[in-house]
Amino acid sequence: IKKIGVLTSGGDAPGMNAAVRAVVRASIYYGIEVYGIYRGYDGLINDKMEELHVRSVSNILSRGGTFLLSARSEAFRTKEGRAKAYENFKARELDALVVIGGDGSFTGADIFSQEYDVPVIGIPGTIDNDLAGTDYTIGFDTACNTAREAIDKIRDTASSHDRLFFIEVMGRDAGFIAVNSAIGGGAVAMIVPEHNWSIDQLIKRLRKGAANQKASNVVIIAEGCKLGNAYDVAAKVKEQLDYFDIRVTVLGHLQRGGSPTTMDRVLASRLGVAAVEGLRDGQSKVMVGVINNRITYTPIGEAIKTVKRLDDDEFRIAKILSI
Amino acid sequence: IKKIGVLTSGGDAPGMNAAVRAVVRASIYYGIEVYGIYRGYDGLINDKMEELHVRSVSNILSRGGTFLLSARSEAFRTKEGRAKAYENFKARELDALVVIGGDGSFTGADIFSQEYDVPVIGIPGTIDNDLAGTDYTIGFDTACNTAREAIDKIRDTASSHDRLFFIEVMGRDAGFIAVNSAIGGGAVAMIVPEHNWSIDQLIKRLRKGAANQKASNVVIIAEGCKLGNAYDVAAKVKEQLDYFDIRVTVLGHLQRGGSPTTMDRVLASRLGVAAVEGLRDGQSKVMVGVINNRITYTPIGEAIKTVKRLDDDEFRIAKILSI
Amino acid sequence: IKKIGVLTSGGDAPGMNAAVRAVVRASIYYGIEVYGIYRGYDGLINDKMEELHVRSVSNILSRGGTFLLSARSEAFRTKEGRAKAYENFKARELDALVVIGGDGSFTGADIFSQEYDVPVIGIPGTIDNDLAGTDYTIGFDTACNTAREAIDKIRDTASSHDRLFFIEVMGRDAGFIAVNSAIGGGAVAMIVPEHNWSIDQLIKRLRKGAANQKASNVVIIAEGCKLGNAYDVAAKVKEQLDYFDIRVTVLGHLQRGGSPTTMDRVLASRLGVAAVEGLRDGQSKVMVGVINNRITYTPIGEAIKTVKRLDDDEFRIAKILSI
Amino acid sequence: IKKIGVLTSGGDAPGMNAAVRAVVRASIYYGIEVYGIYRGYDGLINDKMEELHVRSVSNILSRGGTFLLSARSEAFRTKEGRAKAYENFKARELDALVVIGGDGSFTGADIFSQEYDVPVIGIPGTIDNDLAGTDYTIGFDTACNTAREAIDKIRDTASSHDRLFFIEVMGRDAGFIAVNSAIGGGAVAMIVPEHNWSIDQLIKRLRKGAANQKASNVVIIAEGCKLGNAYDVAAKVKEQLDYFDIRVTVLGHLQRGGSPTTMDRVLASRLGVAAVEGLRDGQSKVMVGVINNRITYTPIGEAIKTVKRLDDDEFRIAKILSI
Repeated sequence: IKKIGVLTSGGDAPGMNAAVRAVVRASIYYGIEVYGIYRGYDGLINDKMEELHVRSVSNILSRGGTFLLSARSEAFRTKEGRAKAYENFKARELDALVVIGGDGSFTGADIFSQEYDVPVIGIPGTIDNDLAGTDYTIGFDTACNTAREAIDKIRDTASSHDRLFFIEVMGRDAGFIAVNSAIGGGAVAMIVPEHNWSIDQLIKRLRKGAANQKASNVVIIAEGCKLGNAYDVAAKVKEQLDYFDIRVTVLGHLQRGGSPTTMDRVLASRLGVAAVEGLRDGQSKVMVGVINNRITYTPIGEAIKTVKRLDDDEFRIAKILSI
Repeated sequence: IKKIGVLTSGGDAPGMNAAVRAVVRASIYYGIEVYGIYRGYDGLINDKMEELHVRSVSNILSRGGTFLLSARSEAFRTKEGRAKAYENFKARELDALVVIGGDGSFTGADIFSQEYDVPVIGIPGTIDNDLAGTDYTIGFDTACNTAREAIDKIRDTASSHDRLFFIEVMGRDAGFIAVNSAIGGGAVAMIVPEHNWSIDQLIKRLRKGAANQKASNVVIIAEGCKLGNAYDVAAKVKEQLDYFDIRVTVLGHLQRGGSPTTMDRVLASRLGVAAVEGLRDGQSKVMVGVINNRITYTPIGEAIKTVKRLDDDEFRIAKILSI
Repeated sequence: IKKIGVLTSGGDAPGMNAAVRAVVRASIYYGIEVYGIYRGYDGLINDKMEELHVRSVSNILSRGGTFLLSARSEAFRTKEGRAKAYENFKARELDALVVIGGDGSFTGADIFSQEYDVPVIGIPGTIDNDLAGTDYTIGFDTACNTAREAIDKIRDTASSHDRLFFIEVMGRDAGFIAVNSAIGGGAVAMIVPEHNWSIDQLIKRLRKGAANQKASNVVIIAEGCKLGNAYDVAAKVKEQLDYFDIRVTVLGHLQRGGSPTTMDRVLASRLGVAAVEGLRDGQSKVMVGVINNRITYTPIGEAIKTVKRLDDDEFRIAKILSI
Repeated sequence: IKKIGVLTSGGDAPGMNAAVRAVVRASIYYGIEVYGIYRGYDGLINDKMEELHVRSVSNILSRGGTFLLSARSEAFRTKEGRAKAYENFKARELDALVVIGGDGSFTGADIFSQEYDVPVIGIPGTIDNDLAGTDYTIGFDTACNTAREAIDKIRDTASSHDRLFFIEVMGRDAGFIAVNSAIGGGAVAMIVPEHNWSIDQLIKRLRKGAANQKASNVVIIAEGCKLGNAYDVAAKVKEQLDYFDIRVTVLGHLQRGGSPTTMDRVLASRLGVAAVEGLRDGQSKVMVGVINNRITYTPIGEAIKTVKRLDDDEFRIAKILSI
């Protein structure tokens, strides 16, 4: 391994810059040249890349987003697109590819690696935490804190007016952000994709909270929940609970941004170094992760297909605390 | 003046607690008993109030919302409601009333004061900054910072994806939050209620920014703007500018919460003390404010009726910086 | 178990309030009466306690410090003090005690439990993360973020002036906060109690960084490091590296405060519930912790005596990234 | 005016980047070429400068510090240094100079402008707010918020332990940061350079607070105060008030960093534009400022020599609220 490329792909996540920085510095530490590829796989297809140096990644540790830019590449889903990508990969004399992204990006990496026998390693960068093979993905902790800080602010006004707020948080089909920001934000209830809560169950919980004169007046709705979005759920609740002044807030894309937390920076730093070390050790078609605080390499296919389960214990605890 | 009541009314704003604290401590400093009235005018009508002491307002300086709770009182708009309120006012032997809120609350205060010849003083507490008689209202600076921090976060992800974001901020019929968070957030354009920007003008600006490869990709929409809400404006732009990946975020109620900034705490502290001192000096039917850094007492009627103008200079500067 | 007492003891940590809240709500959920004891063991000795209800712990989830107050009790180290404490414990008809604190507090709990055969369970609440039996202590994540945010700010000014800053962080005899805030803050070097770095090694690293024109210009010093405090280390470096403009900042007690992070709130919530459930299951003289994301009960004696080791991997990574 | 240079000089302040950005964009808006000069006057002396474009100042609005770097130039205090600077100024065909900094930097600008008849305009960038000719300097609002946030955190732990903290804040010979962070942080007392408080007065205040069981347990010491630094004052208080557990924290350089607040960004944006417009209008040897929300040009000599007075009203209010 003498020369590698690194790209960020799919939805951006806080800490992607820290991961790129770690890949760059670890590469240089081990005497490997490293190229930054812009706009995800599109940059590989269009040959938009340049060599990165120690100084190229100065002052990016603390910044949200990704200075390599990111995209969901339609072209890379086609055989022609990947052929073009491989052409540039060869022409640039790259020996391996580091892909920082989520499951969509890893699916592409897996296919590319199989088609052209190219060493590829994935680093889990997504706020959704929906990848098996790692306890936490880069960006998840920051997103949980961003969402919870917003919930803290909304609680201020909710408490001042005895209002009930339905707050929609991100997470696609996974409830990780929802569960953590609900417990962290002291929500009275949460609706997540993984559980089949009915409107009736929700209303029962809200009635009980009201009976206890509970100050908490926030319900967290995960974006992928089966009951519909936050507006839908709020409307259904309103039909039956007319004594609440109900409001809805969809937190939206602010959850993707912001300076990464210490935990995300440390995680990104560890995974970035471990990705380079993995490539040096001959790893390929794997995702590097941290399980029980140990660096782990999981076959990409497995990381994508396995559904990561929500912690039941946290769900139980949220219920106990919502009395 | 031996005994006064203080209440918070209307939409809550960060710094209301700091204002109550200042009213309480200044009262005690001057040997005046002070009663906290809960849930705005409703608390006066329902006699929900209690004496406040130095310790009652410990540890509230840094908290968002209002521990006295707030509401928009329908009952107080009726003659019967105000009669009931006056009954309790008399029964509690209150000599004056301090009302912390916005123009709706002040209208009520003004009528009440005229009907029953009760000394009333208003403290401007609203994030919208839409009250004449003061350069800044309590909560405005915090809201500008909360909105701008959210914009900073959204810019991270917007920049990573070359996306164009339409972000709707609060402010009712006034563009103060919009202008300040647009300049502070480096927006490429803003639409405020006070100006008659057309969709065509907006599109021209966006085209120019795109031509300059401008990194800024955020448009601020004030909630009261005439072109419609952020979704409406985004849809109209999308019809003509199909090369942008356009997203919308409505910041919503998180702008009302949060620990107040230093400026809002200092402002609330000054106004709270000045309200008590004003009552001692015989002021009534006035709103206390700060103009050019001096404490000023403005007749409530004037404060409500006068429309506070946006600073044209700031508008001009936003345009120059958006190139 | 029908009635329990809960106290916070020793140095305070962000998330202690969240832990008390969880203990209170879990107790009530399981039909157990719960008493809050003020100022740590002193409150037990002086019988300063009162029953806590669901409403008693409303709105404390987001607050730093501990509303039960904390202290290091000299009296509890004496046989007489503990006898007095037991007297009140009996008189109040308490069945068990939950102690939230660090190793000093747990030592007291252990002795008390042995002397009087009282069920006691410990919850690890300390920013230092220096307790075996749990991967993380409550307050550690918040302290790491607070320290790192301060480092981010100092880097702004350090970078603007080509200055070298020595920043001292807390952690007593453990380097956990130092390592995490050094990696997270992009420090060029760190000195921790667990490693025997010499001044010469530090100077070598700084020379190398300077040769690489490294932007990073921050050295993290753990308070318990053997080379002395930040001022000592800076002075020794200055003797040999006169081309740096060297400054020192001791972050100090601000690291103990602040609203807890999501992770600390979730951890505190889980441990608080698990403490009550442990008592119901007959656990005693144990500390509840989370190891590999599972709730674990460790004998208090073991938790105190075992020295928790720094992760060598993180140390290695810090070195690689500091090039 | 066809070509101008811009530099940042002296101690850095949050918002300097925003000011440079505004100078650059306003210049380009008006068809003026603009050069960024690195490391303050040293860059002029050593000819370290380069042309700045719209894209050069993308993404710097939100960053602390100054990307142009800053320094206190010894060489510029000498006739030879200034001669060298003028040589480069001429060789580069610059028509005017914009200096962002504090009084030291302005003194240099004033002399240079007089010696070589060069149009120079100053923009007040210093956290200390100690310049006449403007109500606020760039960086002051951010520093007040940074200091106050640190105080909020320290209060958490102070309140949990009934401790008394002496916190030293920056401001050189001026008490502006101290007064605002004391009122905003709810301090029981403050010692500022402008007032002759004795230790006895301070102790009297603390005794009164203790008698009132005041929760506030923070005293703010301005760095330039006549009673000595925070350690000195704490030691003197300790001699007479032995019932307090007294601690000291010196906030230090973190007050200089951090992402600027909305107010600082808006102020920097206005002043940056106004500086360019001032040069176009023939202004020279002036500092641009904002007085009563209006752009004002004050002769540099006057801005430096006039001592800006602390607002007595704020001092009075701090006293009333500290009961």
